[in-house]
Amino acid sequence: MGAHRNDLSLRSPRASPLKAVGYARGNQARFVGELQQFVRFPSISALPRHASDVRRCAMWLANHLRRLGLPEVHVIDTRRHPLVFARSRFVDGSPTVLVYGHYDVQPVDPVAEWRTPPFQPTVRGDYLFGRGASDDKGQLFAHVKALEAFLRTGQGTPLNVKYLFEGEEEAGSPNLVEFLRTRHRALRADAVIVSDMPIPRPDRPAITYSMRGGLSLEVEVTGPRRDLHSGIFGGAVHNPLQALCELIGRLHDGRGRVAIPGFYADVRRWSDAERLYLAKSGPTDRDMIGQAQVPAGWGEPGFSMYERTTTRPALTINGISGGYGGPGTKAIIPARASAKLSFRLVADQDPAEVERIVRALIERFTPPTIRVAVHTRFSAEPVLIDRGLPAIRAAMSAYRAGFGTEPVFTRLGGTIPVIGTLQRIFDVPIVLMGFALRDDGMHGPNERFHLPTFFKGITSSIWLLANLAGVMREEVRRRPRNRRST
Amino acid sequence: MGAHRNDLSLRSPRASPLKAVGYARGNQARFVGELQQFVRFPSISALPRHASDVRRCAMWLANHLRRLGLPEVHVIDTRRHPLVFARSRFVDGSPTVLVYGHYDVQPVDPVAEWRTPPFQPTVRGDYLFGRGASDDKGQLFAHVKALEAFLRTGQGTPLNVKYLFEGEEEAGSPNLVEFLRTRHRALRADAVIVSDMPIPRPDRPAITYSMRGGLSLEVEVTGPRRDLHSGIFGGAVHNPLQALCELIGRLHDGRGRVAIPGFYADVRRWSDAERLYLAKSGPTDRDMIGQAQVPAGWGEPGFSMYERTTTRPALTINGISGGYGGPGTKAIIPARASAKLSFRLVADQDPAEVERIVRALIERFTPPTIRVAVHTRFSAEPVLIDRGLPAIRAAMSAYRAGFGTEPVFTRLGGTIPVIGTLQRIFDVPIVLMGFALRDDGMHGPNERFHLPTFFKGITSSIWLLANLAGVMREEVRRRPRNRRST
Repeated sequence: MGAHRNDLSLRSPRASPLKAVGYARGNQARFVGELQQFVRFPSISALPRHASDVRRCAMWLANHLRRLGLPEVHVIDTRRHPLVFARSRFVDGSPTVLVYGHYDVQPVDPVAEWRTPPFQPTVRGDYLFGRGASDDKGQLFAHVKALEAFLRTGQGTPLNVKYLFEGEEEAGSPNLVEFLRTRHRALRADAVIVSDMPIPRPDRPAITYSMRGGLSLEVEVTGPRRDLHSGIFGGAVHNPLQALCELIGRLHDGRGRVAIPGFYADVRRWSDAERLYLAKSGPTDRDMIGQAQVPAGWGEPGFSMYERTTTRPALTINGISGGYGGPGTKAIIPARASAKLSFRLVADQDPAEVERIVRALIERFTPPTIRVAVHTRFSAEPVLIDRGLPAIRAAMSAYRAGFGTEPVFTRLGGTIPVIGTLQRIFDVPIVLMGFALRDDGMHGPNERFHLPTFFKGITSSIWLLANLAGVMREEVRRRPRNRRST
Repeated sequence: MGAHRNDLSLRSPRASPLKAVGYARGNQARFVGELQQFVRFPSISALPRHASDVRRCAMWLANHLRRLGLPEVHVIDTRRHPLVFARSRFVDGSPTVLVYGHYDVQPVDPVAEWRTPPFQPTVRGDYLFGRGASDDKGQLFAHVKALEAFLRTGQGTPLNVKYLFEGEEEAGSPNLVEFLRTRHRALRADAVIVSDMPIPRPDRPAITYSMRGGLSLEVEVTGPRRDLHSGIFGGAVHNPLQALCELIGRLHDGRGRVAIPGFYADVRRWSDAERLYLAKSGPTDRDMIGQAQVPAGWGEPGFSMYERTTTRPALTINGISGGYGGPGTKAIIPARASAKLSFRLVADQDPAEVERIVRALIERFTPPTIRVAVHTRFSAEPVLIDRGLPAIRAAMSAYRAGFGTEPVFTRLGGTIPVIGTLQRIFDVPIVLMGFALRDDGMHGPNERFHLPTFFKGITSSIWLLANLAGVMREEVRRRPRNRRST
């Protein structure tokens, strides 16, 4: 791998990717040590008791960026967890790229299933184990180390770089979306880079061109004012937990399709050519069964598992709370029960419209013996990116240089709430360039990050900055002055 | 109230209930203080971390009985929580009564809803608040104080008394049932007294002549080997939590009947006369809706709420665990989910047969995409007692003396697992004489015990011992020598 494979040859005359790549190679061990420090913070955004850990993590990251010599680094308060914003020394007339990532992490339960504690990051074999190692601390860190490689080899950056690292991605990015709506001038860029997604295999990097949107609801059923003795009242009082199960039981049909009337009405139907492309480029059912470690697939008839998780919408019950969950028995009719529902939405579904039909159905299913409240936790639009954009071709080339192998295009089933908003507000190319692996255990116990892929990710990021500098300079020149970033 | 209302006049010539009643009246404040000490122990049998608290509570109770001067008091180890056994000084030829109760208590969650901490027993108005105050520490304590009243007034007991207080009732009495099967000679008695049930109102005491049996199952559904990211796999992997909801959703029909084929097959149908008696003697639907604090009743069509909870079986979901239950969202397909199911069974259902049909149905409903395991936590036979037995008439008379009002007969929806076993093994009259109230909050937060009813309970117990002495002496005389208790 190296310059000879970089077929676009569009790097800045001021900055040599080769020198930067050499620097990164020589500093891999230190990079892993720094990443361990980063992963050590239990920056769980969903849990209020970790609010100060999230903040300490933001401060650490900001200080790390300052020590690289970036002229502007801010920890920006929001209503909840802070944003970290930074930018490189700007060269007037150069294009600008915005790198987005998140330093917050998922909760760690079931904590008993971790082989080593989630916030004592540990290297075993080729992997760094720890919550957030892969999602997303390790991936965003690859871009930080790529910039460091340019700066520490006495070079300027190939183009102007802005960093936006948020602390609420795993909580639905409520405040970032708000921030983008009101403060988007400071963030304006000619392209956006996001690394917060898996690639199919260590030797098969992939640019993501489609992600599902999301709608997270919490359904709360209440019955008696307090828990009742199920001996005394069992059979004569409607049980909120049973009512909740009956409601959830009606949301899918027996074949694995969502049974909410109108749910599939706006779902885009893809051409045979696209479906063929998916079959060729994506994982097989057998691959996915292996990755999920399940006995068999499940879901909507007539679609591959890859399609079911990318071009088709889905409903997942993420959790249910209600009644007694401890050891042994407790004879109660619980006063309340609740479920966390997460919808994954695809083009051309509108989260607001889905929310409307779900709420209407739940209302229709609610018997007079209980009360049901539906709380919306977040919603996010699905994302589709044109595979032919020059920025996307620049990213494919960077992957080739970083991984020494031919990258592919992929669709992802996950949701990064902010991307739909970025796409709508900035209307610039978004490069979704993952460095995680599908079996990294993101969101589960024993999350890990594949270190050889981390190193290839740094190299890819170095080439991406160089390549983008070339293609974006062209783009910026063609764009009216008032739409250029500053 | 007093001797003139005690129409049977069957008390022992050696013991005066009137003197004992006078003593009890003079010591009410001290009795409440002692009960507070008893309630202070967090003797939660279901939670392993409270095992030592359960034991300390047993020791306290045993010491309390020793200080009354009982000649034999044992703390008997079982595989889990100890039994407390004691007996009074025996008079040969006198009948023997066994008083059963339990000193263990239910868990306390949701603990945030308690106005005062569950194990800091507090008197407010006419009530003592605390977990176990009513169920069953306060009720069993009434019988202990009745015996004390005879002993401290320089009298012998009207008949031989054995105490059996267990520490696992709220966990299904697994070891007591075993103990009864193997060691029943030591426990043999001519009648059994149990006070572990509510009466309809403070001015309407009730002898219970029917209790439902029980079958507690835990259903565990497993899917992927670890929690999966619901973005990446949502729609293509069967969610154990969803499968569990779908299974539970199929266990009731839309009208409130249990939808398990064969579930009602053995349920005894009652005569119009009995149903009329229930309608006359039991709570109305309106009463029960008020007690439960629900907007409306629910359940099997064609039966009153009282019937639904006493002569009809029921299935209650006591709790579900699965996935993420914390604040905010966590995008997972959980690896497993489980539910606690409690069946209440009536004459002439057989718990073993119900277990068989439930297991068969669950097996039939299990799709190949998940695995389901069913664990039996406990089972107990339903209980029916002949209202015409002399011991039952003696108890009605004792209630009259204690409460100054006419008692009624009642059926109860709850289950005391040991009673079915006692009935089968000893084949003697069982007096189910409650001192709790329906709104005591047994099993819920802010459990309380109505102190005026506690005091009436002590008086009733004094009269019960006296009355039973008379009627049982008759019974014992008529019984072959080898079946007499010692």
